[in-house]
Amino acid sequence: MEYGNSIAEQREQFGNRSMNQVDFINGKTRLFGIVGDPIEQVRSPEMVSWEFQQRHHNAVLIPIHITQNDFNDVIPDIMRIHNLDGLIFTIPFKVKAIKFAKTLGPQASLVQAINAIKRQSNGDWRGEIFDGVGCVEAFKRRGIALTDKRIQLIGLGGAGSAICVAVAHERPSLMRLFDLNERSTEQMTKLVKQISPKTTVEVGIPRCDDLDILMNASPVGMLSDARLPLAAKTFDKNLVVFDAIVMPENTPLLLLAQNCGCVIVRGREMMLGQISRLVDYFLSP
Amino acid sequence: MEYGNSIAEQREQFGNRSMNQVDFINGKTRLFGIVGDPIEQVRSPEMVSWEFQQRHHNAVLIPIHITQNDFNDVIPDIMRIHNLDGLIFTIPFKVKAIKFAKTLGPQASLVQAINAIKRQSNGDWRGEIFDGVGCVEAFKRRGIALTDKRIQLIGLGGAGSAICVAVAHERPSLMRLFDLNERSTEQMTKLVKQISPKTTVEVGIPRCDDLDILMNASPVGMLSDARLPLAAKTFDKNLVVFDAIVMPENTPLLLLAQNCGCVIVRGREMMLGQISRLVDYFLSP
Repeated sequence: MEYGNSIAEQREQFGNRSMNQVDFINGKTRLFGIVGDPIEQVRSPEMVSWEFQQRHHNAVLIPIHITQNDFNDVIPDIMRIHNLDGLIFTIPFKVKAIKFAKTLGPQASLVQAINAIKRQSNGDWRGEIFDGVGCVEAFKRRGIALTDKRIQLIGLGGAGSAICVAVAHERPSLMRLFDLNERSTEQMTKLVKQISPKTTVEVGIPRCDDLDILMNASPVGMLSDARLPLAAKTFDKNLVVFDAIVMPENTPLLLLAQNCGCVIVRGREMMLGQISRLVDYFLSP
Repeated sequence: MEYGNSIAEQREQFGNRSMNQVDFINGKTRLFGIVGDPIEQVRSPEMVSWEFQQRHHNAVLIPIHITQNDFNDVIPDIMRIHNLDGLIFTIPFKVKAIKFAKTLGPQASLVQAINAIKRQSNGDWRGEIFDGVGCVEAFKRRGIALTDKRIQLIGLGGAGSAICVAVAHERPSLMRLFDLNERSTEQMTKLVKQISPKTTVEVGIPRCDDLDILMNASPVGMLSDARLPLAAKTFDKNLVVFDAIVMPENTPLLLLAQNCGCVIVRGREMMLGQISRLVDYFLSP
């Protein structure tokens, strides 16, 4: 019997075909995930995987769709996958996820919520939240200063609290806070005063007649929710309007602001602002 | 205040960068995985992900490293990830994995082992084994007929049983079977006689002096194991030698066969032979 048999021939026929076409995943690839419900709208799989590629780190970030009923059971077992090094948590898991972190980073300690968890070299899982950092970074990339500005922040959940703390570090002249949960507004009022003693802090129904910047970090306006997070028919064109919501890209709030000629800053920019910091965090020991 | 604000400008600055660079994963990506211990040597992540890309199906196959102690607890929870549609099982999980399948395909029913499981449209998980199909396909791609050949098969574990059944369907003239487990040789003898009544079946210590094709499906020779799966110093150059082992690519058996001028067929070819069938299976309802 005679058949073609050289290694080179076999490589030609079987090997190179697949090996060279897909270079983003193999047996040595490290896993990261974003956990949410729903999951289809998330943007971090392509953004974070792209950042890993730029840094020549063999890793991907995958979407992980887990329902609220399954969350508490399934996450601890996913954390037992040996080649999984970190997770991002998105809606509705930002507050619930904190129990899986053995230690907390500085931002997460302040706001008691996390949006990322990673396995440290000693095996322990550490949590941190990057939404605030991402929001401030988005404003920096646009060249819009927060220092000495008059700011209204609506919504003090996981992301909102993180944004509140990060913005306070920029020392605005006024921070007016609104949340349905009074404990949240009290805690954040105290924190802002600690971080930036010269900032005036007010609590109450959101207004925008005397503002430089309006920020929404509440879920009002998400997906098919047609509501505005505050009562308003029009905005002064000098108002800057930010919305932390990623989906839809143009929330009802941002559409109104655009119609009034305002500068808008989108949730996607907050996400992009935190990608590089998140990957720094994931790849640190 | 005046800042650049058009959607086109924002896309330019923030959007396209990441969106266009990574097009293999996003929030809508469906997940498949290969589960093993160790995992770094597996080839299916790039092979199967490549096949998904060729078929324009938004899915990736990721490596999942789970230890033997964690296997029984962790797999059921991984199967609760809603965007995960299938798993491949490799060493050492091919026989243990069968319990997670609610129903079995025809090959798996015969050999009582699976190497793949998938979520059906009714929500039930169905198991099947493709190693046998892949082995026969590898020989076909090389133009080497199995019909009327004298064949020795060493090893009747999960993969070996599947190979035994698939080869029997090709109606060889002789099948000589060897496994340390006598129940396996008895069961497979019965099966071969059912599938191909004219095939002579023998059981006993492996020999190769009177053969056309020698097949190893035992783990002897895997990784740094320097042993041969049978006592042999040399092979006739007309013997065709197949090894189901994927790592190393050149097992001690294949190296000896190559030195003797034999045609060899590698484990990687068996894997490639089953990729397309596996993906058909994963993507069927």
